[in-house]
Amino acid sequence: MKAEIICVGTEILMGNIVNTNAAYIAEGLASIGVSCFYQSVVGDNDARLCEVFKEAAKRADVVILSGGLGPTEDDLTKETVADVMAKKLILDDKAWKQIQKFFEKRNLTLTDNNKKQAMVPEGSKVLYNKNGTAPGIIVEGDDVTAIMLPGPPGELIPMWDDQVVPYLKSISKEAFYSETVKICGSGESLVETELKDLIDAQVNPTIATYAHTGEVHVRVTAKAESEKEAHKLVKPVVKEIKKRFGSKIFTTDEKVTLEAAIMQLLNENKLTLSVAESLTGGMTASRLINVPGASEIIKMGFITYSNKAKRKYLGVKRSTLEKYGAVSEQCAKEMAKGAAAAAKSDVSISLTGIAGPDGGTEEKPVGLTYIGVSVLGKVKTKKYLFSGEREKIRESATAASLTLLRQCLLENLTERTFSAK
Amino acid sequence: MKAEIICVGTEILMGNIVNTNAAYIAEGLASIGVSCFYQSVVGDNDARLCEVFKEAAKRADVVILSGGLGPTEDDLTKETVADVMAKKLILDDKAWKQIQKFFEKRNLTLTDNNKKQAMVPEGSKVLYNKNGTAPGIIVEGDDVTAIMLPGPPGELIPMWDDQVVPYLKSISKEAFYSETVKICGSGESLVETELKDLIDAQVNPTIATYAHTGEVHVRVTAKAESEKEAHKLVKPVVKEIKKRFGSKIFTTDEKVTLEAAIMQLLNENKLTLSVAESLTGGMTASRLINVPGASEIIKMGFITYSNKAKRKYLGVKRSTLEKYGAVSEQCAKEMAKGAAAAAKSDVSISLTGIAGPDGGTEEKPVGLTYIGVSVLGKVKTKKYLFSGEREKIRESATAASLTLLRQCLLENLTERTFSAK
Repeated sequence: MKAEIICVGTEILMGNIVNTNAAYIAEGLASIGVSCFYQSVVGDNDARLCEVFKEAAKRADVVILSGGLGPTEDDLTKETVADVMAKKLILDDKAWKQIQKFFEKRNLTLTDNNKKQAMVPEGSKVLYNKNGTAPGIIVEGDDVTAIMLPGPPGELIPMWDDQVVPYLKSISKEAFYSETVKICGSGESLVETELKDLIDAQVNPTIATYAHTGEVHVRVTAKAESEKEAHKLVKPVVKEIKKRFGSKIFTTDEKVTLEAAIMQLLNENKLTLSVAESLTGGMTASRLINVPGASEIIKMGFITYSNKAKRKYLGVKRSTLEKYGAVSEQCAKEMAKGAAAAAKSDVSISLTGIAGPDGGTEEKPVGLTYIGVSVLGKVKTKKYLFSGEREKIRESATAASLTLLRQCLLENLTERTFSAK
Repeated sequence: MKAEIICVGTEILMGNIVNTNAAYIAEGLASIGVSCFYQSVVGDNDARLCEVFKEAAKRADVVILSGGLGPTEDDLTKETVADVMAKKLILDDKAWKQIQKFFEKRNLTLTDNNKKQAMVPEGSKVLYNKNGTAPGIIVEGDDVTAIMLPGPPGELIPMWDDQVVPYLKSISKEAFYSETVKICGSGESLVETELKDLIDAQVNPTIATYAHTGEVHVRVTAKAESEKEAHKLVKPVVKEIKKRFGSKIFTTDEKVTLEAAIMQLLNENKLTLSVAESLTGGMTASRLINVPGASEIIKMGFITYSNKAKRKYLGVKRSTLEKYGAVSEQCAKEMAKGAAAAAKSDVSISLTGIAGPDGGTEEKPVGLTYIGVSVLGKVKTKKYLFSGEREKIRESATAASLTLLRQCLLENLTERTFSAK
């Protein structure tokens, strides 16, 4: 089965936003073995979208479109696709009710424009939207199937995962199985080097690496007559990758994030956590708190951006700040100890660094970061030098802190006869 | 002048990497007023690249290609483009010398493949590469100009900025100017409705709305013979939009975020801030701290996810938690008051809510959130009901808290003879 991706939106065309939707959809297609040879971007323009859609429809079995399903006059993906596929637009009652409810709930004023979002091509499958107003739509034509998805990633991603992937699997004739091995604490080129022999020899299954901030995901995908057969082909390769990366692998479950793996580790061992953040300013706590059930585990988060706050809430010594500065191993250590003591938590994590763009010196450049982890009183600190802009440095520091936290947990828990699964 | 972007690379097509090059080039084109109506992605495949390039060459004056200039057999952008444009490839001595030097410096072994990178279509302008081996190439044909750039962003970006932009400006006949009005506290469809007459009448300048979580951006773009003339056309339209949305507009500077506008407001009025977060768990503080210079303003962030922490650090009364619960107007109020008192800050902001997926009841459903803002002792609270998954709810709450914070600041500062710009 061949698919093609068309992202609709002047914002992408003008470079206001990076086209992450295309990457997400492309990765998803690859994971279920659907070939994709072209991606296109067009603005919210009827004639140009029409041209691109017709071209794609000639080449592919399935055309996936994102964006242009909003309530405004700009938004015309649905109208254009319905026109090319010779379908009338009709009102979908359920979608219309959901939109009305969405507005009522928020005390927002419903305008005539909003009804437009509930119009769908006749005979189409409607993908109801739990995270916004625009429903997604699957239109099965004689030669091509069009799948239209809302542009905001917060709406597109869950709709893709929960509704589009199962649909695509159901119409695909070949069976695929893929497994993703998620690794933290190794860069992409290192992972590739360590897997070079496997990657060079790949036929079926295929092996692909994906770099994320602080993580590398290795996806192993096999094609066969049944999913069970495909699974059999994947198994030995995943086993070999596990052997090579050991405890750096935090999950082989596509849906498990690094923070979720850590929260599970804490939960299973009945350990509580506190977080003390300077340069990341809540980013680390926020990632951990995104895991449901966090309230049982996270006792407190201290965002101590100022030296005063570091002293008052974490008990960092004035002399430490004077002698070594706030961005120092000593300060990170005292922050971790202080957070655990103040919050009475078993485990704590601390981050202090220079996010930039100002504040760097020759001795302590922008990006310099110290991270501390305390597990049952045992403190470990580590020095890092991250590069990039302010936000990138903060994201890298957050990712590194989670990797170090996990590593310290595993080391300490092994001593307590913990068995890593 | 019309341009089109083609990014070549199987990694983009498979979703291994996000296509940041396209966004960078697109934004660059928009900023110098070059129209771009299409972007495409193809893999390293001669037939498909040939097809896409021919199509683009029919529509555009300039086709910009990135990727596929590497030394391996996979890399065939140059070969394909030269073939379509009927140009022979010849060795560029300067490029070849630079490549040899690059390898020498790094003690790397030069292979025959590397010579391939110094081959360029006859009569082309060579863009020498200071950051890698592949030179960029400009080939001026009778009907179309092809500009080929190396794929790695670290090589493409400086080459684009230093060599391609000046070249494009030198051959462009029109000038553009655009301004973005950023609005918070109004949904996209409401903004559209309020601007309907302007949007319906638009010719030059054009008006486009972009929805972001909690924000709507309205971009006004004009075309003229000079940038100054274009600016003149944009001015009255922006003035009219400002009149209609008043204080809901937080900036007309493309680069200023909502959090930056708030930090500036605090800074100008010498006000300090503390943040108390439950469901958002540091997300609000993290957005604010992403603004450089935050350390002068943000005194402390409390991530009080548990009731105990709310009592201990913010002084929320046990009786309040028992009678009204943690997700209540009363609790939000006490959190805001308590944060300001504990951190000795002039202003504070508090968030408490149910992020889900569990924990919701009929009376207090998932998404219910109370936000409190205290400005110089005056506390305002507001109730919200957000929808979506856990992360989306938390992001919406964060955006809403920034909008409420800004609104409360403006209200209170007006009383102190504050003049909104």
